[in-house]
Amino acid sequence: MSESNIPHGELKNLCVEILLAEGFGERAAEDIVDVLVEADLRGIPSHGVARLKRYINERNVGNIDLESEPFIVHESPVSAVIDGGAGPGQCVSKFAMGLAIDKARNNLVGLASVRNSNHYGISAYYCEMALKENMVGIAMTNSYPLVVPTFGRRAVLGTNPLSVAFPGDDHPLILDMATSVVTRGKVEVFNRLGEELPSGWAVDEFGRDTTSSERVLGNFKERNPGGILPLGGSGEEFGGHKGYGLALLVELLCAGLSLGTWSALTYQGGSAGVCHFFGALDLRLFGEARTLRTHFQSIVEGVTSSETAVGRDRIYYHGQKEALARETSLEQGVALDQKTRESLRSLAKKWNLIVPEEL
Amino acid sequence: MSESNIPHGELKNLCVEILLAEGFGERAAEDIVDVLVEADLRGIPSHGVARLKRYINERNVGNIDLESEPFIVHESPVSAVIDGGAGPGQCVSKFAMGLAIDKARNNLVGLASVRNSNHYGISAYYCEMALKENMVGIAMTNSYPLVVPTFGRRAVLGTNPLSVAFPGDDHPLILDMATSVVTRGKVEVFNRLGEELPSGWAVDEFGRDTTSSERVLGNFKERNPGGILPLGGSGEEFGGHKGYGLALLVELLCAGLSLGTWSALTYQGGSAGVCHFFGALDLRLFGEARTLRTHFQSIVEGVTSSETAVGRDRIYYHGQKEALARETSLEQGVALDQKTRESLRSLAKKWNLIVPEEL
Repeated sequence: MSESNIPHGELKNLCVEILLAEGFGERAAEDIVDVLVEADLRGIPSHGVARLKRYINERNVGNIDLESEPFIVHESPVSAVIDGGAGPGQCVSKFAMGLAIDKARNNLVGLASVRNSNHYGISAYYCEMALKENMVGIAMTNSYPLVVPTFGRRAVLGTNPLSVAFPGDDHPLILDMATSVVTRGKVEVFNRLGEELPSGWAVDEFGRDTTSSERVLGNFKERNPGGILPLGGSGEEFGGHKGYGLALLVELLCAGLSLGTWSALTYQGGSAGVCHFFGALDLRLFGEARTLRTHFQSIVEGVTSSETAVGRDRIYYHGQKEALARETSLEQGVALDQKTRESLRSLAKKWNLIVPEEL
Repeated sequence: MSESNIPHGELKNLCVEILLAEGFGERAAEDIVDVLVEADLRGIPSHGVARLKRYINERNVGNIDLESEPFIVHESPVSAVIDGGAGPGQCVSKFAMGLAIDKARNNLVGLASVRNSNHYGISAYYCEMALKENMVGIAMTNSYPLVVPTFGRRAVLGTNPLSVAFPGDDHPLILDMATSVVTRGKVEVFNRLGEELPSGWAVDEFGRDTTSSERVLGNFKERNPGGILPLGGSGEEFGGHKGYGLALLVELLCAGLSLGTWSALTYQGGSAGVCHFFGALDLRLFGEARTLRTHFQSIVEGVTSSETAVGRDRIYYHGQKEALARETSLEQGVALDQKTRESLRSLAKKWNLIVPEEL
């Protein structure tokens, strides 16, 4: 049975039990696992329970502090700056987005810039907290430096994902994208398959285009120059400077507004220092929620119902693939790769936990 | 002397006189020309006085209504929805951004979504209005449909530019980018030079990659399918779906929140219907303005002072090239291409206006 999908409830329970056994508190364990399993459900395994072991390591090396609570260092009726106290990114982020939503409920807008946090998982998760309240949700984070600015050779920016979600009548639109061409996970997949990278994904230690995943990953490991390119790729011909600008924008909203650590300086000196930005915009800012939602959806449907390219049968809206994958996973269980299964089994074994038979 | 640069003051005066002669009001003429000349000063001729004739045509066909004033259709202490009354985009936008700034001055945040406007020129202009007040500025607009969504073949989205500006100590960071790989202007330049387009800029009427600028421009002219690709290019391999998502995000903030016309439906039935979105965020939202500005600048300088790629001597920050070009133009006058010179001369002749000798 080791190759079967795992019912997501069982997967969740096991992961929570592992974190509890590792000394994580109940709320932390549940917050973390909820966000990770949501990624697996949507077919984003790079941000799923495969990260559990890494989070445990982060706690062990002192980057994640389980004793602390996030606290507000500056506040207005529509905004806050939050120090995450080096807590788990998921706990800090649920607190920060919750605060932004509360402010938006009372004053229509809520913005929160967060410093001194950790990896928070998928950005879309936090945007969806706002969707439930008829709000536009915004979430973004800086991250470990992997991305080289246009005309540079040193990875000083993170993949700096941003997510914005608009409620709809039947379905929301959820954009959730790294501001780089690809993520490290994609480069690793090409490396495992022994395939050349498309030219325009990455540069070598001299800042020259490279198609060697081995070289890119090797440079990351050795902390050499080189890295992944911003959305738009190499130079300016395809708009690489735009992706670089978007990454910088995320950096300024997260680390800038919170007086926090920018990507190049994260994961140094005993803390991760990851920074986030959250926003919640109540639709009452602009009119009657139901009318607005209907109009949003008519625009999205106008795009997706336009003529497809030859050989294509569908134009997707953002979040649609993930919603479809989630439906399937809820019915048929979560698919996990062999490495993740082994990692979970070994963690379970360490603490004498019973594993689901499907694992 | 016909090939000399033109002192920007003289250029401005001539263009204002032309618009006045054409029946534009004084404020409209000055607002429009100020934004257009700012583009020429920065080396963005596609959005400069070359557009003057087109704006006059827009008035003549009834898309621009010179008698109307923008009016507020919905309002809160931190937001407004504005109907532009089909007025000139520059007038409507200065009004809307001014209102957003006023709200931010009083309540820290100001957001304005605008419908029923016209082409507004360069987005950065409006962001800079916020910079002067120690605010983060946000400006974006939808536009004539030229951009094909991922897996589509019909241009239903505009190049939908977005601009965000952060104040700094010595200099601001001003990101101003189309959410498409390139603009139509770039395709036209390649066409004039008889050069092939880079693959990944555009698709033909079947939604297939094309390198023929003639085909792309021909399809625009015939209103056939085909068009420019979103930032990230063709398909998903280089993140084209991300650029498509950014274009859709701009669409929802501009046309969605204002219950306005989305790009696919602009310039139909006697009105342009262009929609904008503006935001002003007072730095007091997040702390002490001077401390924040210094921190922003340290992040930007951290990026631009990192090691350059071989063969490159500089990493730019966004808005730097434009600021350098502006300095040069203020000193040495504005460079205009032959076609724009001829267009201005012919407009001046029509109204018996004296042209600067450099024109």
